[in-house]
Amino acid sequence: MGKHKLLKELSTIKTAQRRLSNLSTQARNAMLYTIADALEQQAQRIFDANDRDLQIADQENIELPLRKRLVFDQNKLVEACAGIRQVAALPDPIGRVRERRLLDDNLLLERVNVPIGVIGMIFESRPDALIQILALCLKSGNAIVLKGGREALYTNKELVSVIREALSDNKVGSEWIVHMESREDVQEILQLDTIIDLLIPRGSNDFVRYIMDNTKIPVLGHADGLSSLYIDKESDIEMALTVTVDSKCQYPAVCNAVETLLVHNTVASQFLPRLKKAFEPWSVIIHGDERVAEIITCQPATVAVWDTEFLGYEIAIKIVDSLQEAIDHITYHGSAHTDAIITSNKATAQRFLREVDSADVFWNCSTRFADGFRFGLGAEVGISTQKIHARGPVGLDGLVTSKWLLAGDGQIVAPYAQGKPFKHIDMDLDGTSLWKEEE
Amino acid sequence: MGKHKLLKELSTIKTAQRRLSNLSTQARNAMLYTIADALEQQAQRIFDANDRDLQIADQENIELPLRKRLVFDQNKLVEACAGIRQVAALPDPIGRVRERRLLDDNLLLERVNVPIGVIGMIFESRPDALIQILALCLKSGNAIVLKGGREALYTNKELVSVIREALSDNKVGSEWIVHMESREDVQEILQLDTIIDLLIPRGSNDFVRYIMDNTKIPVLGHADGLSSLYIDKESDIEMALTVTVDSKCQYPAVCNAVETLLVHNTVASQFLPRLKKAFEPWSVIIHGDERVAEIITCQPATVAVWDTEFLGYEIAIKIVDSLQEAIDHITYHGSAHTDAIITSNKATAQRFLREVDSADVFWNCSTRFADGFRFGLGAEVGISTQKIHARGPVGLDGLVTSKWLLAGDGQIVAPYAQGKPFKHIDMDLDGTSLWKEEE
Repeated sequence: MGKHKLLKELSTIKTAQRRLSNLSTQARNAMLYTIADALEQQAQRIFDANDRDLQIADQENIELPLRKRLVFDQNKLVEACAGIRQVAALPDPIGRVRERRLLDDNLLLERVNVPIGVIGMIFESRPDALIQILALCLKSGNAIVLKGGREALYTNKELVSVIREALSDNKVGSEWIVHMESREDVQEILQLDTIIDLLIPRGSNDFVRYIMDNTKIPVLGHADGLSSLYIDKESDIEMALTVTVDSKCQYPAVCNAVETLLVHNTVASQFLPRLKKAFEPWSVIIHGDERVAEIITCQPATVAVWDTEFLGYEIAIKIVDSLQEAIDHITYHGSAHTDAIITSNKATAQRFLREVDSADVFWNCSTRFADGFRFGLGAEVGISTQKIHARGPVGLDGLVTSKWLLAGDGQIVAPYAQGKPFKHIDMDLDGTSLWKEEE
Repeated sequence: MGKHKLLKELSTIKTAQRRLSNLSTQARNAMLYTIADALEQQAQRIFDANDRDLQIADQENIELPLRKRLVFDQNKLVEACAGIRQVAALPDPIGRVRERRLLDDNLLLERVNVPIGVIGMIFESRPDALIQILALCLKSGNAIVLKGGREALYTNKELVSVIREALSDNKVGSEWIVHMESREDVQEILQLDTIIDLLIPRGSNDFVRYIMDNTKIPVLGHADGLSSLYIDKESDIEMALTVTVDSKCQYPAVCNAVETLLVHNTVASQFLPRLKKAFEPWSVIIHGDERVAEIITCQPATVAVWDTEFLGYEIAIKIVDSLQEAIDHITYHGSAHTDAIITSNKATAQRFLREVDSADVFWNCSTRFADGFRFGLGAEVGISTQKIHARGPVGLDGLVTSKWLLAGDGQIVAPYAQGKPFKHIDMDLDGTSLWKEEE
């Protein structure tokens, strides 16, 4: 796609988004089913395009994990289409009434959920991420600007072609999708702050951090996931062992796997030898501080380990003398993503839950629960460590903003400015919004 | 304050914020009452400092509106202290449970409101804005970095001194307040994106736009307030007149006063002559398009008037041929702040409420209702035209983010990863959060 065509598409995307957002829930869901059907019917075209990307990747000797993420085969297709149909079945995030207040007689205020507008999606290699985010945007009435990695260019182009063709008979069409196909730097999309309302990056930590550091567009995501687990002096050692092993070993390559273990000195000599044994099936490499090294054989912890996200079978262990020391360590070294405590003392747990300022703070369970699906959010847009807009696992609500509707019968401000009081009666939130026709 | 001292204060502000946020509701409210009492007791010191600022302002011949905003006298003090005590009486925005879900037996998830962290406040001239935002931050457990205009330097310094002295006996003290006193460029605070989580600017449109364009910190606010009112073909002409006059004339210097009036051609000849007469007491200057000029005497509208925020007794009037034309005009020329329709046709109103993508969209009432106090939000942090985080009039909720708490009895992810289903039962939101001790 040439520069000229891209600019034209970007100029019409806001109009297209408005048309999309004016569709009924049923119409948006029907579009999702249409897309899923089309992807299944045109599967071979997508597989062929993916083969082309994979051939180039092999010629360029790309790293194995990257190649693995690049594959789009029958399994990925089945999963992607099931995902689209799941999104279609979710409740509509648009039009939900968040606040409803009678300001005075016949003067009704409503705050209702509306789409954000234009979502920018930047992703490395994985073509299935394109389908997932596109489905979430369609569900929530948002337009989308896509910018994929150059290694998946042919697959992404074919996916977008199939989706465009599927929507060509639809009255809204596919102008709400803009695919930036140029092989130019990602820098291009980062400059679109007058067009894109929210950026969602998917890729490595370095990739996400680069994006966060180089755009004025709000970013939903997280660069680091340095999670800590604190074993309190009053804790069930069996529980501590099971939860530590799950948090570290169940799937270590992800952001909610534990990287730093803090152990209270009074339980260390009892806990650590048993933990070392429990870690054996995975050959977990232990970096311990001096006091840990007095109890178990381990690698000496360097200064850097406390700030390292291993993303593998490797862990840093430190002995602490108090809850306060644990909280301070997490505050200083953590990434404010997910941190947990094991304790049988409720007051200790409450202090930890209150004072650890992370997106997810857990008590007596695995850090691996930090996930939109496990939280029951239905769909996961991403996990955010930002404090503004959305924090932690983010569902479709993260693609939604609100607007205020006020309906009266001719009320003016003048009498209220002269002292007429408001009634301000909070009303039931059930029922359809002012803007919707009764069904 | 020297650069060295400033850096030291900024390095401790996050710790101070955590101490503040760990206080009970009662303790934070007590601090608010202490501050109000102290401001009243030390009033003369503040008035003297204000006199000094006013003398300098007079020597420098500053503009009258700016001088007016700079005055901090007995009236302003009474208002400011009443404001602080009102904030103290509001419900605590912190600790409210937003979601509560039983993921499985004895595995309880809660999403609770917590402070954002460090709020940056940049304001021109008005010293009472300092007191208001400081009170809102204290109420919501946020630290604050203040940067006032140089014209109010002595007043602001004295206000902060009085507040610091008042809190000196308090166990948390006043380290959660940092006052940037240097006369250097506002640029300084805009760079603090690793320290400040949210910026709230208060001042002229140009001032706010400059801030939005020159920082990576999220900004809560609005630069422009170009509000439009559309008089539909099916509208009660008496209501249309009353609402138009109130929206324009009740207080024209503010962001929610109407600037552009769109009138359907079928009612124009009936409505416009009466409107012109109704505007006479305020000598409202009318800029009309060619078709308006055929009906009433007016100034010919230039291309620029449709993008002008007059902020005075001046209005641009355009005749349109359809609801669609009105919506398109608002979408293209408006500032997405507050727009309204007068119509007796419910379907027309619903389309307007749905399709106009502004923070506030009103039906049959004055645009001047767009205000946190009128909306019943208790306190107003500001009005935001951003879509991310908060939109429209923002109450204390705008100074709040959330975190997820999960409490179990040793649950691990492994069995769920192998197919064990979650229960995901939504629970009653009433009652205290996991982190709070029962009272």
